[in-house]
Amino acid sequence: MRISFIGSGNVATHLAAAFKNAGHKIVQIYSPNYQNAALLAYHVGADAIADIDDINTETDIFIIAAKDDAIEQIAQKLAVHQKLTVHTSGATHIEAILQYNPASGVFYPLQTFSKTKEVDFRSVPLCIEGSDGEITGILTQLAQTISNNVYRISSAQRKTLHLAAVFACNFPNALYAIAQSLLAEQQLDFDLLRPLILETAQKVQQSLPAEVQTGPAVRQDEKTMNMHQEMLTGQPQLQAIYEALSQCIIKMDNQLNADR
Amino acid sequence: MRISFIGSGNVATHLAAAFKNAGHKIVQIYSPNYQNAALLAYHVGADAIADIDDINTETDIFIIAAKDDAIEQIAQKLAVHQKLTVHTSGATHIEAILQYNPASGVFYPLQTFSKTKEVDFRSVPLCIEGSDGEITGILTQLAQTISNNVYRISSAQRKTLHLAAVFACNFPNALYAIAQSLLAEQQLDFDLLRPLILETAQKVQQSLPAEVQTGPAVRQDEKTMNMHQEMLTGQPQLQAIYEALSQCIIKMDNQLNADR
Repeated sequence: MRISFIGSGNVATHLAAAFKNAGHKIVQIYSPNYQNAALLAYHVGADAIADIDDINTETDIFIIAAKDDAIEQIAQKLAVHQKLTVHTSGATHIEAILQYNPASGVFYPLQTFSKTKEVDFRSVPLCIEGSDGEITGILTQLAQTISNNVYRISSAQRKTLHLAAVFACNFPNALYAIAQSLLAEQQLDFDLLRPLILETAQKVQQSLPAEVQTGPAVRQDEKTMNMHQEMLTGQPQLQAIYEALSQCIIKMDNQLNADR
Repeated sequence: MRISFIGSGNVATHLAAAFKNAGHKIVQIYSPNYQNAALLAYHVGADAIADIDDINTETDIFIIAAKDDAIEQIAQKLAVHQKLTVHTSGATHIEAILQYNPASGVFYPLQTFSKTKEVDFRSVPLCIEGSDGEITGILTQLAQTISNNVYRISSAQRKTLHLAAVFACNFPNALYAIAQSLLAEQQLDFDLLRPLILETAQKVQQSLPAEVQTGPAVRQDEKTMNMHQEMLTGQPQLQAIYEALSQCIIKMDNQLNADR
């Protein structure tokens, strides 16, 4: 397919590269910052534009990979061309495009992207929604050219998925950062924790997390939990996080045992 | 070396297997539950005992891999033999053994073990403490036979390390479980999140977590955060966790920017 991107951030960068590798033609990259558009365009053999009025309409699909707040406005501008248009946002309803264009959809890659780290796209879950059955079919076929994990997900489901991803990705990373700061106070290197972090994530690739929970809270080891709270004296924010997550672990474990 | 284990749980199971593979002789496995002792003893070619008075003193080292609360009592019983004795606990001071036996130490593997999942022990950080320089040397040499990541860590440092490990392992797993429960409410499969969880952990193998933080909180995207809070209506425990971790992300990011 002939594909154009509106946006040149992490998602656009990784998606455009994956499409190019799968044999698609990347036509244009638009960014209000021409340098950013040009850099990505160079890597994927596309043209760069910084004015959305310069858009090439000889494209099969426009992929809006922009900030959530900007999607609706871009969709409105592109509506005149009446081309298949999708966004890549977890938190945005298909309606943001559909209100202007009947040929619309969502193409949401459920992964955390960094510009400097390669991602094996074949294992990235792609969440597809189309404004009708035909478009859903086109988007599913397109998705399957770059990923082995293609799911049809409604806007309502995607909203939940995005919230769940905050709990599964953004918040664990924040906890890693807290752990690193605790180590730094004692001149201990973060390398000490890296294998533990990786193993914890690997464990739930096969198991369900509630079934492999470890630590003082699931053992209801009050002595250790009290000692930890005492060590966090003077850091009320960390004490609150410790308390809330420990109580949650105890509650989930009681639930798990009740279900057995 | 000739090694005996007091305990037959996850830590004893993985340590005994690693020592046996490295060519050491596992002499005895003690557990008050004879079946448990016998199962592990069978796998590592040792004898099983259920009465601590049956301990074989022709051993170079006793490794107490038991519950934290039981360590001191076991150390007291073993003291009569005056053999090198260590525990494997992150949360327990060396003093728990040292008060009964001058030849004491700590051999703390910083990893989360499951009985059913193999671990590559060479990458597991082993935290060593000895009651004197000679014993620290012996324990370090022993540790190096099974791991490439051997650290000398004092009891005070280990206490912090153990707290940090709760933040880096037990709490992220609890968040995975919360994410899974949110998906289940919408009949969505946990498989959708597994690649994201793994990538999030892989990202911090090279980078520091604060530098790769993503999500609505670090973008200070109030609109999305408010929407998420609304979606969690009726689940005050999850709302509190969402709020506490989001505020923490904002605070850490401000700190990071101030340091630049």
